[in-house]
Amino acid sequence: MKVSIIGTTGYGGAELLRILYRHPEFEIQSIHSTKEDLPIWKEYPHLYDVMDEKLQSINSEKIAEQSDIVFLATPSGISGKLAADFANKDIKVIDLSGDLRLPPETYLQWYKHEPVNEGLTDKAVYGLSEWYKEEIKSSSLIANPGCYPTSALLSLAPVVKENLIDPSSIIIDAKSGVSGAGRSLSRNTSFSEANENFRAYKVNEHQHTPEIEKQLLLWNKEIKPITFTTHLLPITRGIMTTSYSHLLTAYTTHQLLELYKEIYKGHPFVRIRPENSFPSVKEVAGSNYCDIGLHADPRTGRLTIISVIDNLMKGAAGQAVQNANIMCGFDDEAGLDFVPMYP
Amino acid sequence: MKVSIIGTTGYGGAELLRILYRHPEFEIQSIHSTKEDLPIWKEYPHLYDVMDEKLQSINSEKIAEQSDIVFLATPSGISGKLAADFANKDIKVIDLSGDLRLPPETYLQWYKHEPVNEGLTDKAVYGLSEWYKEEIKSSSLIANPGCYPTSALLSLAPVVKENLIDPSSIIIDAKSGVSGAGRSLSRNTSFSEANENFRAYKVNEHQHTPEIEKQLLLWNKEIKPITFTTHLLPITRGIMTTSYSHLLTAYTTHQLLELYKEIYKGHPFVRIRPENSFPSVKEVAGSNYCDIGLHADPRTGRLTIISVIDNLMKGAAGQAVQNANIMCGFDDEAGLDFVPMYP
Amino acid sequence: MKVSIIGTTGYGGAELLRILYRHPEFEIQSIHSTKEDLPIWKEYPHLYDVMDEKLQSINSEKIAEQSDIVFLATPSGISGKLAADFANKDIKVIDLSGDLRLPPETYLQWYKHEPVNEGLTDKAVYGLSEWYKEEIKSSSLIANPGCYPTSALLSLAPVVKENLIDPSSIIIDAKSGVSGAGRSLSRNTSFSEANENFRAYKVNEHQHTPEIEKQLLLWNKEIKPITFTTHLLPITRGIMTTSYSHLLTAYTTHQLLELYKEIYKGHPFVRIRPENSFPSVKEVAGSNYCDIGLHADPRTGRLTIISVIDNLMKGAAGQAVQNANIMCGFDDEAGLDFVPMYP
Amino acid sequence: MKVSIIGTTGYGGAELLRILYRHPEFEIQSIHSTKEDLPIWKEYPHLYDVMDEKLQSINSEKIAEQSDIVFLATPSGISGKLAADFANKDIKVIDLSGDLRLPPETYLQWYKHEPVNEGLTDKAVYGLSEWYKEEIKSSSLIANPGCYPTSALLSLAPVVKENLIDPSSIIIDAKSGVSGAGRSLSRNTSFSEANENFRAYKVNEHQHTPEIEKQLLLWNKEIKPITFTTHLLPITRGIMTTSYSHLLTAYTTHQLLELYKEIYKGHPFVRIRPENSFPSVKEVAGSNYCDIGLHADPRTGRLTIISVIDNLMKGAAGQAVQNANIMCGFDDEAGLDFVPMYP
Repeated sequence: MKVSIIGTTGYGGAELLRILYRHPEFEIQSIHSTKEDLPIWKEYPHLYDVMDEKLQSINSEKIAEQSDIVFLATPSGISGKLAADFANKDIKVIDLSGDLRLPPETYLQWYKHEPVNEGLTDKAVYGLSEWYKEEIKSSSLIANPGCYPTSALLSLAPVVKENLIDPSSIIIDAKSGVSGAGRSLSRNTSFSEANENFRAYKVNEHQHTPEIEKQLLLWNKEIKPITFTTHLLPITRGIMTTSYSHLLTAYTTHQLLELYKEIYKGHPFVRIRPENSFPSVKEVAGSNYCDIGLHADPRTGRLTIISVIDNLMKGAAGQAVQNANIMCGFDDEAGLDFVPMYP
Repeated sequence: MKVSIIGTTGYGGAELLRILYRHPEFEIQSIHSTKEDLPIWKEYPHLYDVMDEKLQSINSEKIAEQSDIVFLATPSGISGKLAADFANKDIKVIDLSGDLRLPPETYLQWYKHEPVNEGLTDKAVYGLSEWYKEEIKSSSLIANPGCYPTSALLSLAPVVKENLIDPSSIIIDAKSGVSGAGRSLSRNTSFSEANENFRAYKVNEHQHTPEIEKQLLLWNKEIKPITFTTHLLPITRGIMTTSYSHLLTAYTTHQLLELYKEIYKGHPFVRIRPENSFPSVKEVAGSNYCDIGLHADPRTGRLTIISVIDNLMKGAAGQAVQNANIMCGFDDEAGLDFVPMYP
Repeated sequence: MKVSIIGTTGYGGAELLRILYRHPEFEIQSIHSTKEDLPIWKEYPHLYDVMDEKLQSINSEKIAEQSDIVFLATPSGISGKLAADFANKDIKVIDLSGDLRLPPETYLQWYKHEPVNEGLTDKAVYGLSEWYKEEIKSSSLIANPGCYPTSALLSLAPVVKENLIDPSSIIIDAKSGVSGAGRSLSRNTSFSEANENFRAYKVNEHQHTPEIEKQLLLWNKEIKPITFTTHLLPITRGIMTTSYSHLLTAYTTHQLLELYKEIYKGHPFVRIRPENSFPSVKEVAGSNYCDIGLHADPRTGRLTIISVIDNLMKGAAGQAVQNANIMCGFDDEAGLDFVPMYP
Repeated sequence: MKVSIIGTTGYGGAELLRILYRHPEFEIQSIHSTKEDLPIWKEYPHLYDVMDEKLQSINSEKIAEQSDIVFLATPSGISGKLAADFANKDIKVIDLSGDLRLPPETYLQWYKHEPVNEGLTDKAVYGLSEWYKEEIKSSSLIANPGCYPTSALLSLAPVVKENLIDPSSIIIDAKSGVSGAGRSLSRNTSFSEANENFRAYKVNEHQHTPEIEKQLLLWNKEIKPITFTTHLLPITRGIMTTSYSHLLTAYTTHQLLELYKEIYKGHPFVRIRPENSFPSVKEVAGSNYCDIGLHADPRTGRLTIISVIDNLMKGAAGQAVQNANIMCGFDDEAGLDFVPMYP
């Protein structure tokens, strides 16, 4: 299968290259960016002598002709327009941005810029691979989930779907590495100000809030607005979501872990940790795993769930390739057999 | 005033030296450790040519004779025994460990080792400087608060005391730099495994839980068990506590900030941030400040409070010196006028 | 004495504020920047509740009237013009940039922009405090040394002046924290690309090369062009220079250390480490110290000198204040009694 | 081919697992350690659900019977003894330690413990893959090179062999990430003391000095003792060696780069950077590449060479697998097609 990448110079694009370069089924057909004609290694010297490809301009007509799949690793606001361009062409589209994940009015409210046409968002399948595998298989347009939502949703799905927690009690305290902010420059992501630092940002305003709520509601219509706080970790890669909720019945940690293991059986990228073991972000670095640990506290009746992913892998490019695998009928793990890089 | 330090080779001890070296009212009389006769700069080369003092053995008789104040920067389990030794001597004692903060049975349950005599804990005043100033002033034995409790309690006190939040709704998601784990070696605090990593630890089992609950209950007897999660940040210094609770009435962010400013007026080390500004840990590094920002979310009815301290300063040595200042009738800020080191 | 700062929003300016805020002899009269009217804490939230000052426009007439000393913490290219403005006014000027350190033609060659008038550079005294104390005392215009040159020159001065090394053999391998690159944004200083990374930059092209050579030649006219390599460390503060040279006679490490101690006797900010002890950058963090360790290797006949400073302190703002102290007849250490912040 | 690993719980062992898990030609037969019976994921949770293998005791008889290749990832002092055990057995042995790299008397002098039998070191082939491919192919005992020597030797080989530099002028300023120090705990490698720090260590005493000198002398018998300084970088992975030497004739940077490209043609893991481009350590992270950039300075007549590797890959496990590939007649790149993980 021939794949193309648009928006190759961002971190999502670079990670797609890292994966696709050695993917057994996909071949990189072309890479695109506004930095036309630049060899990719000039933008990313780690690719020197690995890839000679030059960045090409973004010509959707030509891309659709030459490729079977296109990954949109472009920013919100641009991805949506490109997805519309590709809408009636014979090509599978996977959009890594937030443009296709929300209904237009919600998008406008949280993203503060023009939404895409409603028809397009209706057509797009939400690419949370473990939960929408059948829909992904038969779709040609994927809204690849956000990094925070992937970690939060995979870790909350079982208790939300099984109605085990108070639907008005969900609080998600999330922490992300700096690469999640992308490659554009800003003071808060400059080394001197992010290093040896830790900050909360977009408190109660993060655009991933409605994305998480939308999916939780699809699983359990009683879910009430969640509290979602995002923090910037002084690391490059990795997300942890620490979720709190009130258990409706006094399930033990053991019982809940059994449930999680049962639900995620056959899903190789979700690893449910044994009792008293909680994952750290480095334990999934460079891999497509989502690791989940949890503890039910009899003292408070609350459930604490710890979930980690590599934000550029399962939180972006890794899940995008997983979805491409599913769309093409390949094994979920094709080209994604990265063992976490530790230490 | 002549001061001595016991347990000088830990990070709390080293930070006491940094502060006391240039304190206008205190003079370092002697420093003590089990590493008898070692010049302190051999243990801490950053003190070379600054301090020539040698570490001395721990002789409480002699220390009490020669000093006006003694800081116990020794580990839990040892501090309590030393505090008992000094109990009937004419010397002010400030213990930085957890040994004097809890009733014996609670201590045993959470610390898993032998508590001190109940009489001693009864006598000790909890040194949360901003809230127990009068008691500290007239005491000769201070249980200096833990790092996490200092950040959590200063940020929760106003809404807990004023009964503005649901007393059963408190969740504290806490993050600490590695120096909080002390100077003894462990795999989780080794560079290769803590760097580029983030982990939760002691989930629902951290020994600061009962310390926080005890104080909250003193302020509001309706308080129910809290959920308290601790995480290890890949930074050396700094704590952030992100606290969640349910507002009983629909106070606005603005109203709450006004309340906080009113309550902390005259307390120079608590800085209440303006609306839409949230503190980051680097913004207090090396200083004795506790910075607090908050947001009341009308969507959820929840209050999010962000509070940061330098765990070795306001979370340990800084607050200890602040308490010593109070005990001796000096200005809170004496010797503590450190501007945060940024960047 | 009343002092003003121009270029307050850069890291050098912020560090001047940290020092001057608690300096016993200097009072901050006014702070200046192109960001007129902005309260400084909006630019630097760590100063919230500490300093209420607003940034003022740069009016040299008014500054000279109201202040005794002005610090130019402005970038190269701007500082020189400001220094010219102040040249005939009754005010002491300390320029932290490179604009006054080199003869015009050399400046043009290495800095690639317009030099200041030669008269001005001739008038400026090179503010390497330990070596030009008398000249600084009687000057009103100081070219404050660069960060790398400070570390390199203090550590090479004794052997160069005493003619102990082959004058054509000097190689300086230098490493700096990211704050040395200033506060303007760039890809190489963004967190995601500087973190967990280490890179050489400006190989054989760094503008501090001629500054170092100029001073070495003043001490020993046989000195030949040096090799000087700069690298970017993934830390915020700190410089290490590792210098290599060939010993002309077989001095031992011990003999050389004795010489260094003798030469730097009475200079409190230069700490000569004992044999077999080499300084690390964290051991001077936040302080004005320059720590030096060395080793003469009988196997090779070469001398290795390790020297560390905090680039924002002894490498910029700290030395600038030290020079201001000297100019005003105060003790070198006035307001600079910072114990290194460790860990 | 069936491979076994002894010393699996160190970082070299863990990295071997990461590589071998997905190697197309090798199958992990058994893993060994003194921590008998422990499932490997309990030691390394990042391997949870990836590898179920238990650590086995070290029985050389049984290992030799069941495996075709054994990797010794054990510490110096232990590896040598194990290599002797395997000496007469029908198994290929690759030792990652320093035990087989030096003649006994040199080993004793620099490593300060008992050397192995001279016959064994004589039999061992030095596994610098690019330079000893033929010898490796026909050998059954490999002394896998040290991390620093790999970076230094690959970058110096062309000019040393071609006699382009003054043989008495070599200075290597080396910097390594903390994982190079292994997994045992020490104060200098604890997070709080290594983070935001940079230190020189073992100045003129590092045990890799004679290893580098031995190989340089094999290439050019005029080589004199080198100066070699090692520093600890606050990163987990990565080595940079910055090498200085005096050019005998005035070769240009361009000419030297052409020579390097010519010499390393056909060696996929050595990437010679174009003029004015210097590699950073992150640009090879997680991969088996050694990237080299250089600059000949007409001002000084000196050559500066910058070389980077991932110390756990090309500096240890990666090169070990490359050697195993060579020994078995596989492509050098088999199982080593990792694109660097950036950012």
